[in-house]
Amino acid sequence: MKIYDFAFAPNPRRLRIFVAEKGLKIPMEQVDLATGKNRTPEMLAKNPAGGLPFVELDDGTHLAESVAICRYLEGLHPEPNLMGKDSREQAFIEMWNRRVELNLFAAAARAFQHTSDMFKSRIKQFPEYGATQRETVANQFKWLDAQIGNKPYIAGDRFTIADITAEVAVDFGVQAAGVPMDPALKNLARWHQSVSSRPSAKA
Amino acid sequence: MKIYDFAFAPNPRRLRIFVAEKGLKIPMEQVDLATGKNRTPEMLAKNPAGGLPFVELDDGTHLAESVAICRYLEGLHPEPNLMGKDSREQAFIEMWNRRVELNLFAAAARAFQHTSDMFKSRIKQFPEYGATQRETVANQFKWLDAQIGNKPYIAGDRFTIADITAEVAVDFGVQAAGVPMDPALKNLARWHQSVSSRPSAKA
Repeated sequence: MKIYDFAFAPNPRRLRIFVAEKGLKIPMEQVDLATGKNRTPEMLAKNPAGGLPFVELDDGTHLAESVAICRYLEGLHPEPNLMGKDSREQAFIEMWNRRVELNLFAAAARAFQHTSDMFKSRIKQFPEYGATQRETVANQFKWLDAQIGNKPYIAGDRFTIADITAEVAVDFGVQAAGVPMDPALKNLARWHQSVSSRPSAKA
Repeated sequence: MKIYDFAFAPNPRRLRIFVAEKGLKIPMEQVDLATGKNRTPEMLAKNPAGGLPFVELDDGTHLAESVAICRYLEGLHPEPNLMGKDSREQAFIEMWNRRVELNLFAAAARAFQHTSDMFKSRIKQFPEYGATQRETVANQFKWLDAQIGNKPYIAGDRFTIADITAEVAVDFGVQAAGVPMDPALKNLARWHQSVSSRPSAKA
């Protein structure tokens, strides 16, 4: 297996953290998203949706979409379990993963895309719309703080893929979208400190 | 089990089609999204993210996010299989489901939200941004047509959750976001005719 990766983008980081938590070593090839190398005819033949990461399996097939790749790896390497041990637990972890992904992570991505110089030549930017997405990110930080409450992890009492998505989303929201983490959000800060101190955070 | 549903919204329709394809009968309660009944304190106590659909399990727990609910139902009622029989097949079906969901369905939702009168009082609208999202929907129709090619279904040779998401996304793109299906897209038209003629399409 080989991972097509880009070190500075958030979705590839999700997969790298997942792989590190599983204790796996998988070869990686860098594809420069910033200069559009993911959209060459050669790359589009492998992943026609054009994003990163994707993987090349040993039979030459290509699998894309971060969470789909994680699910494949979870099947091959069930321990440590990161996506649920039975269908009920899988469903609740998926609920949390999706809430973070669709409500926080996607808003951080839109905030970045509509306000960053990096996207000036790539999309029609609406900076005022980007500003509303920053507000959404700030509101989602508050929401997540309330949802974490006294729980150690996003989906309950152990580290799961929902923590990986939230860790990447929060870091991207702060660093790329420019939304500070309000120190009054003590549950979020405690959780963020905890997940950021795991060795996988550096992946 | 009970489903909290709203007949006129696309995510609840995804779940209804899934339930119909499984041959299940599950009681439903209508919650009027249009007048914000999903955001009353009573409803937010059940689903703090505020969306629909969500389900109440027999033990009183609430599970939200359409695909997470589908995964739970798939575990309880494995046949007909709609999400993959092993982790490899699950991963490829999830790849297709996510491509349609993140690239087409989400764009149709943004197009609708930023141009419809229904959202005037609910969000700060950017109609010009909504117009770019309509273009994205039209481009995604073309992309999907090319990806379907001669395949009978989105993820390959049988009907899966990826077809459900695509069916709901295409119908929502046409009817709510106002993006016509170009009749030149013959693969998309053939596939759409096929999924629309299944009894579940009326769910």
